[in-house]
Amino acid sequence: MGDVVNIGPHLARASEAPTERRRRAGRNAERLRQSAATPKYLNLTNPAPKSAILSEDGLEAIHRASLTVLEEIGIDVILPEARERMKAAGADVTPGTDRVRFDRGLIAEMLASVPSQFTMHARNPLRNVAIGADNVVFAQIASAPFVADRDGGRRAGNQEDFRKLLKLAQSYDVIHTTGGYPVEPVDLHASVRHLDCLSDLVKLTDKVFQVPSLSGRHIVDGLEIARIGRGVTVEQMEREPSLFTICNTSSPLRLDGPMLQGIIEMSSRNQVVVVTPYTLAGATAPVTLAGALVQQNAEALCGIAFTQMVRKGAPVMYGGFTSNVDIRTGTPAFGTPEYMKTVIAGGQLARKYGIPYRSSNTNAANSLDAQAAYESAFSLWALTQGGSNFVMHAAGWSEGGLTASFEKFILDVDMLQMVAEFLTPLDVSPDALGLDAMREVGPGGHYFVTPHTLARSASAFYSPILSDWRSYDSWAEAGRPTTYDHANRIYKAKLEAYVQPPLDPAISEELDAFVARRKAEGGAPTEL
Amino acid sequence: MGDVVNIGPHLARASEAPTERRRRAGRNAERLRQSAATPKYLNLTNPAPKSAILSEDGLEAIHRASLTVLEEIGIDVILPEARERMKAAGADVTPGTDRVRFDRGLIAEMLASVPSQFTMHARNPLRNVAIGADNVVFAQIASAPFVADRDGGRRAGNQEDFRKLLKLAQSYDVIHTTGGYPVEPVDLHASVRHLDCLSDLVKLTDKVFQVPSLSGRHIVDGLEIARIGRGVTVEQMEREPSLFTICNTSSPLRLDGPMLQGIIEMSSRNQVVVVTPYTLAGATAPVTLAGALVQQNAEALCGIAFTQMVRKGAPVMYGGFTSNVDIRTGTPAFGTPEYMKTVIAGGQLARKYGIPYRSSNTNAANSLDAQAAYESAFSLWALTQGGSNFVMHAAGWSEGGLTASFEKFILDVDMLQMVAEFLTPLDVSPDALGLDAMREVGPGGHYFVTPHTLARSASAFYSPILSDWRSYDSWAEAGRPTTYDHANRIYKAKLEAYVQPPLDPAISEELDAFVARRKAEGGAPTEL
Repeated sequence: MGDVVNIGPHLARASEAPTERRRRAGRNAERLRQSAATPKYLNLTNPAPKSAILSEDGLEAIHRASLTVLEEIGIDVILPEARERMKAAGADVTPGTDRVRFDRGLIAEMLASVPSQFTMHARNPLRNVAIGADNVVFAQIASAPFVADRDGGRRAGNQEDFRKLLKLAQSYDVIHTTGGYPVEPVDLHASVRHLDCLSDLVKLTDKVFQVPSLSGRHIVDGLEIARIGRGVTVEQMEREPSLFTICNTSSPLRLDGPMLQGIIEMSSRNQVVVVTPYTLAGATAPVTLAGALVQQNAEALCGIAFTQMVRKGAPVMYGGFTSNVDIRTGTPAFGTPEYMKTVIAGGQLARKYGIPYRSSNTNAANSLDAQAAYESAFSLWALTQGGSNFVMHAAGWSEGGLTASFEKFILDVDMLQMVAEFLTPLDVSPDALGLDAMREVGPGGHYFVTPHTLARSASAFYSPILSDWRSYDSWAEAGRPTTYDHANRIYKAKLEAYVQPPLDPAISEELDAFVARRKAEGGAPTEL
Repeated sequence: MGDVVNIGPHLARASEAPTERRRRAGRNAERLRQSAATPKYLNLTNPAPKSAILSEDGLEAIHRASLTVLEEIGIDVILPEARERMKAAGADVTPGTDRVRFDRGLIAEMLASVPSQFTMHARNPLRNVAIGADNVVFAQIASAPFVADRDGGRRAGNQEDFRKLLKLAQSYDVIHTTGGYPVEPVDLHASVRHLDCLSDLVKLTDKVFQVPSLSGRHIVDGLEIARIGRGVTVEQMEREPSLFTICNTSSPLRLDGPMLQGIIEMSSRNQVVVVTPYTLAGATAPVTLAGALVQQNAEALCGIAFTQMVRKGAPVMYGGFTSNVDIRTGTPAFGTPEYMKTVIAGGQLARKYGIPYRSSNTNAANSLDAQAAYESAFSLWALTQGGSNFVMHAAGWSEGGLTASFEKFILDVDMLQMVAEFLTPLDVSPDALGLDAMREVGPGGHYFVTPHTLARSASAFYSPILSDWRSYDSWAEAGRPTTYDHANRIYKAKLEAYVQPPLDPAISEELDAFVARRKAEGGAPTEL
């Protein structure tokens, strides 16, 4: 793979009639606006002061140590073109090796052009998401090899479950974007999988989606599918970031070819890159949390700097994914106290650089038991208090990301909605202070049927999806259902109630034609 | 019931030989210090800035509205002696009624003498707990009418389970104090129940405990049992608060006789009162959270002010327990977004007054399922970020407090330990930054067996009690155990391993003699 893949031929039709295209897109957006039920939990913000676990000195120490890593040890950059671009930007490339070292001045210069805020544009403008500042965006699970529900057990990813998970993502407003392929549908051939999957993402949801950084070809196809879905020109796509990709470093201290190619393709077109080192303390990073954070920061800064070498001002996020391992077995642990600390510290680092912060709603449970809930709730605690802007794997993650769980998806949606409710302001208007209601009820009375209560009872409190608040006797009589039982029932009912979001038939046709043509051309390379 | 109950006769023997008594207590404490395994999680602090959900203006609005409630509406005070003391202090008592109104100047004057910090003294000095400032103390569940484990199901409280729960409380250092009777042992006659229960609390644990505010007689017996347990004089007890009681208001806007009597008995002897309104938005308080907080604050300030009318400088805590109800059924809900908000707002109010803050680890689940975990985790999130100093019901609470669950106790201990680990500082020493380890491993290596990892692997991360981090296959092969299964196994193993804390045989004898004598005297009144 070489330079930016030429996508001209595929975009020709779109560029031919931009006026008609824009008119159609405008009508479509208007129709979507009218047809949508009043959505909740959109444009979520977290305006409270963020938590800190590092002192100013501690934050500086991690920052400086990570710059020392980049200067002294350096990063292995497994793509010649990337090394050339880095060298051109002023990095020190050791000839005949992959090793690149970065002066701290160069890093600072590159960070200066990173935008602190931007918008990702969906095909339904109501689903546009603001990234950065106090904004909070929840994205569905991505990239699980397995999928599970209670009835069918755990199985390899497949298209049927893939589509069901997209439908669920579309069914809840608190899922602001999908996160990628919620599960990898291995029953589709790898060369054309992205064509079917990304086409499904456009048709079954109207939200922003991810294109996987598997090759330049994958990304270029993804860009075109997103552009067709939005019904916009190449130029408008380039003004309005509409697609994101996750760039995981190959820790420790390595960036591999497909990820680097992904940065080149995406950043050059002003699309969104989420640089996320996968630094497991005691495995792919030092066992100390501070050491793992130093490495995370070095890798993240390297990837982020590279986006700016490709294109100044390209939108990018700082991803934190540092957790620990089970020290006895080396398996990854999630939602632990250590994870909480690194999530909060990662937020401090991202804010220091003024870069939007990505984290994840994690757990390592094998079932929908208490562990699944407490590890996720602790993750949500840390990522909320730590000021995360973009939460990957926000719903559906189980088994440390190996399995997309239908029931866990519902549990997570319920927890995310609770977080969203928690983030709404507490009304202290004179009416809310309730002095008149207290004067009326007085000592010893009750508030069940006062006008103050009755006027507000419909919307007074969050009504959870899963929590079973029946008395013990009623609950026992109902067969002692657990959260798992409720989630199993509800995901099926929600799938039944799924409504496909409106899509202009002309867009649908264009999408099908593109997918058919690209399939006929053989899709994308599977040997990278 | 009238004035402070005269406990002179019961204390006579203790006062006769204070020197010998102190010598014995000193030897005993030394022996305990030597015999104890190195405890963890003692003297827990939460030094980070606390979260705020109310703006300064919002906080002021709630504060001022609650003073208006106390001035204009007033509180029904269901104890003549209390009304007399309030009148003597300057409150406005409406003749021939229970109604008392409090000028805001009087409230401010009374709050001025409340200590912002104090220590509660246990019979084992290692178990003394500092209350206030950044200190965090976890207390076991209290006052559940039912008890449950998976094997025996749900049953009425009884002495056998009561004792088992005390043994579990003793077995974990993160349970800093018991919270009262973890379950009400109704197989003991009400007139003598407190004698057996409090005696058990001295013998089976070496931690601070609660005496229930059922009557002055109960409290006086509790004071004497605590004093005998500590082996100190009346005078030393009075210098060193050693016992606490919970004073729940009878919301809305009412303080009943036993609670007021409790304040009189406890505060007059410099023991600890925890004033906790039970304000359920939409039931016992206005449906708006701000309104419920206004009422909580009015009731709490009234009770706290009364402690200072009884004795200037008496130790007292500000309890917040505002939650919402299931709006369809009126049943209490816990661990909800609304609960989180009121817990954090309550912390802001308590800090405004400089009074130690008590909250609770709540949930309304009927089983040990995901709901039990997420409602508790959300409670822990709010009470930690909100700066709680004293956490009642920290371990064992299920079903909204109706049932003490053995398995939930273990789940909570695990979660509390995770919170405690989360609160420990993140080490950013040069060694922890790990630059040398990174130089050694370099790009593309791994950290599993580096010296930096091996030197730290034993203590690098928290090792959870319950989390099952095995691979899916290993877990499936092991029979797919859930958190509930693990907790069931572990609570039994922990009971097996229980070691009774050392107690001077002379103290034990004295305790038995006191209990026998008081039983012979008929115990305490059961008709109040």
